[in-house]
Amino acid sequence: MLGGRAGGARVSPPRRRPPPPGAGRGGRRPGRPRPEPGRTARAGPRDLGGTQVEGRQAVRELLLAGRRRVRDVWLADDLDPAAVIEEIVELAGDLRVSVRRVPRARLELEAHTEAPQGVLAHAAPLPEADFDELCRGDGRTPFLVVLDGVTDPRNLGAVLRSAEGSGATGAVLARHRAAHVSPAVTKAAAGAVEHLPIAVVGGVPAALARARELGVWVVGLDAAGARPVHDLPMATDPLALVLGSEGRGLGRLTRERCDEVAAIPLRGRLASLNVAAAAAVACFEVARQRVPRSAS
Amino acid sequence: MLGGRAGGARVSPPRRRPPPPGAGRGGRRPGRPRPEPGRTARAGPRDLGGTQVEGRQAVRELLLAGRRRVRDVWLADDLDPAAVIEEIVELAGDLRVSVRRVPRARLELEAHTEAPQGVLAHAAPLPEADFDELCRGDGRTPFLVVLDGVTDPRNLGAVLRSAEGSGATGAVLARHRAAHVSPAVTKAAAGAVEHLPIAVVGGVPAALARARELGVWVVGLDAAGARPVHDLPMATDPLALVLGSEGRGLGRLTRERCDEVAAIPLRGRLASLNVAAAAAVACFEVARQRVPRSAS
Repeated sequence: MLGGRAGGARVSPPRRRPPPPGAGRGGRRPGRPRPEPGRTARAGPRDLGGTQVEGRQAVRELLLAGRRRVRDVWLADDLDPAAVIEEIVELAGDLRVSVRRVPRARLELEAHTEAPQGVLAHAAPLPEADFDELCRGDGRTPFLVVLDGVTDPRNLGAVLRSAEGSGATGAVLARHRAAHVSPAVTKAAAGAVEHLPIAVVGGVPAALARARELGVWVVGLDAAGARPVHDLPMATDPLALVLGSEGRGLGRLTRERCDEVAAIPLRGRLASLNVAAAAAVACFEVARQRVPRSAS
Repeated sequence: MLGGRAGGARVSPPRRRPPPPGAGRGGRRPGRPRPEPGRTARAGPRDLGGTQVEGRQAVRELLLAGRRRVRDVWLADDLDPAAVIEEIVELAGDLRVSVRRVPRARLELEAHTEAPQGVLAHAAPLPEADFDELCRGDGRTPFLVVLDGVTDPRNLGAVLRSAEGSGATGAVLARHRAAHVSPAVTKAAAGAVEHLPIAVVGGVPAALARARELGVWVVGLDAAGARPVHDLPMATDPLALVLGSEGRGLGRLTRERCDEVAAIPLRGRLASLNVAAAAAVACFEVARQRVPRSAS
């Protein structure tokens, strides 16, 4: 949940920050963003994990993205026919990745998630993106989603999936807070980790200070936020959206680094939303405000 | 996910439907909706389940709502001090509900969810709301969230939580599709089931036909939808938002009953969102379009 009624939200809306040095504006037209071909070459020495990928969508996207080497694909031998399974087998064939038919019990023994849907794959670790490069953008206006302590793997995966779907250009995880992309994360992310560049930082507050130096607006999401998320004057500028932990919301130091703390207006009786739901609403709000509407 | 690229979406936007007979318009002012005091009296003979409530927020809201009798509250005997635990003990005291301190292992044996957070409660079943009454509204413009085959309990609970937070006036579940509100649902809903009226129907397509007879617009959510969810001309009218299943999206018969099929525009490379994330985005889009914005 994005709880916490503590104060500290800034009241006065910030004015436009000058465009960051070196951030191109050429890619800002509305439309489907293209993948970033040069990204993997810049991967850091460490890795994010993600070597065991579970679930149909996740394995399909792993093969489709072709961003990292795939060792093998395991399929349960009792799978009912399905288009997505056929597609996985076909993609694996194209990539010369071996497909092993294994007994369901063997696959479930290997799996780390409760319901791997009869499909898993082993692959090279996810490449780690460079934080500064994410802040500078790659021809697209940066839209980063920063996770400050989201610990539940299903929530983390769901946030990455929503971020990717909303057109975010990168995600940022904190190294000390179990940044590892576990099989449960890959499954919930349903392939988002194959497409969304992910940077890992030592500490979120310091990273946010650096992002501001690089011309990125930092917007925290918190139930105590002063500004409705539907009305962010900086939505079309380089932006980092910061999500707090399930239990405590934004940390104090993180909140102090925010240009603005925004809230999703609640109209029921509960005081907070699930962090993944809040992330989805906020990410698609940024997307809505970024793209000019066609006619209405 | 809200997958499925099948056709069938209607292209021409419907015009305003005349106000439904008997649906009051007095409650349409923007602002915090009030609870509906007469609701429990109308519960049907069957029940929804929900008798075992797990998790801190869920138990706190059960006690706060005071909508159903609570038999007892169990707390693990090794809980660290926390404001929400103190509040639960205090609320239980006010209501003369017995609080049992039990060994953690005993509580986890009783619990049906993996992480009950050291707190659970036993209560009378959730009352079942009347579908027609939900469609007519109770002084508020109806905003119903209809779940057509969402089976994962965490997704179901998360959808109910987002619906409540966005100001939905009711939720609708299908009886034959495991409508039972399990402990996992109560936990993920974080108390939403205590506040949001829930009706159970025999079949979703027939219920949607009935809703239309009662003057409610029926809007399906599907990746193949023709209209962006950001632009629903009927958002301020009586509305039922229909969510399909995780795997297959909206069923054919359900889709045929929709006045409109709306989509969340995706800007990444993945073809679909998690159903709970999509529900959150759509519910808060309806909320945003319902409430006039202050100044911008």
